[in-house]
Amino acid sequence: MNHDVFYVRPQDVSDETIVFRGDENRHLVRAMRKRAGDSVLAVDGRGRAYAVRILKAGKGETTAEITGVHEKPGERDLEMTLAQGLIKGGRLDWLVEKASEIGVHTIVPVSTANSVLKTLSPQRMSRLQKIALSAMKQSGRSFLPGIAPVTAFDAVLESSSVFDVRLIAHPVPRGGPGVPIPRGRRILCLVGPEGGFESHEVEKAFECGFLAVSLGPARLRAETAGIVLLARVFSLY
Amino acid sequence: MNHDVFYVRPQDVSDETIVFRGDENRHLVRAMRKRAGDSVLAVDGRGRAYAVRILKAGKGETTAEITGVHEKPGERDLEMTLAQGLIKGGRLDWLVEKASEIGVHTIVPVSTANSVLKTLSPQRMSRLQKIALSAMKQSGRSFLPGIAPVTAFDAVLESSSVFDVRLIAHPVPRGGPGVPIPRGRRILCLVGPEGGFESHEVEKAFECGFLAVSLGPARLRAETAGIVLLARVFSLY
Repeated sequence: MNHDVFYVRPQDVSDETIVFRGDENRHLVRAMRKRAGDSVLAVDGRGRAYAVRILKAGKGETTAEITGVHEKPGERDLEMTLAQGLIKGGRLDWLVEKASEIGVHTIVPVSTANSVLKTLSPQRMSRLQKIALSAMKQSGRSFLPGIAPVTAFDAVLESSSVFDVRLIAHPVPRGGPGVPIPRGRRILCLVGPEGGFESHEVEKAFECGFLAVSLGPARLRAETAGIVLLARVFSLY
Repeated sequence: MNHDVFYVRPQDVSDETIVFRGDENRHLVRAMRKRAGDSVLAVDGRGRAYAVRILKAGKGETTAEITGVHEKPGERDLEMTLAQGLIKGGRLDWLVEKASEIGVHTIVPVSTANSVLKTLSPQRMSRLQKIALSAMKQSGRSFLPGIAPVTAFDAVLESSSVFDVRLIAHPVPRGGPGVPIPRGRRILCLVGPEGGFESHEVEKAFECGFLAVSLGPARLRAETAGIVLLARVFSLY
């Protein structure tokens, strides 16, 4: 079924019709061989899904009429941001895929004291956005996770006051699952890079009102910690 | 630090000394260039970690004297088994790595109605065991997760009565996080392959006392569902 879900840009949606363009249109027409009369599902990446019937399929663009609208399929009533210390290559790809599948709203790659990588090339950013788009369709979500530009650790803290709940993955002494995670609509999860945060970074986060969440007695890789923290918070909703 | 953790087979541990052999000895002596007098950490994969000092390093084997013993570092007081519908290639590798990092005790690859793959070659089994070993060392655990042979779905159910808690990842109607997960020492998590379980399989599991745990409104890939369910259960401990 997921093969029949296609992305439509919000600006290509009008009252009665939508238009598929670019990569997505090529995928629709060439790979999936959809033609006039075929019914498919379109998602706009902003929480709307449309049942549509194709009117005219073309190489450049395909027009379809809207036969039904669904609000926020596949979504929780929650905005989850994952701010994750920058990690390398395939592990970052994987993190973006999994976080997008399980319901993240925005991923912020963070440059921290211990992150080996400090920037992402435009090619990498573009690849990560494609991974997020593919995961959105795969998982039946209707919101397209955003990949923010690389942001400095201090800047993440400075802009963190807009969140209802601020969590930082940080080991606490053994024994017990730690403090309960409060509920909220806008949640920020902050996770270190390989090598973790420096203690002065953790202190700063505490001063900004972040709560420490321990992810257990084992030492998790950075990307594993990101997914485990998201899974844990999502389990409350 | 994790580079200084090495695996020692339980049968190579005596009262005062241990002996590293095989791959692990080659890694110790060739790659990490450890010599007589060096101190390293050894884990036996059964919950014991030893601080040791090398007495004699050799190409074939290395002997070290035990200077300290730690019981169950990196482990919860819990035995978690993940029985997962067989999935292909890299996604299974990834699942084994992540489940091993976060604390799984045993992974049972399960052959179900919808699993495309029905067996794993000896080479694949060996590769999965190496991934589990590496993840154990990486994450500072002391228990080496076991990879069981491929097991038929019905056989998993038949042997499930030894577990205190039996959970099956299964979508439930939207709204609310579902029933609370009971606590226990031996826990079995059952997760489908790509394509999920057939409804007759889910019914059989319910008859055997499995509880359904919903992993949220999005449709997760099989390996993502496995990790999310583990993360969710571990968060209670």
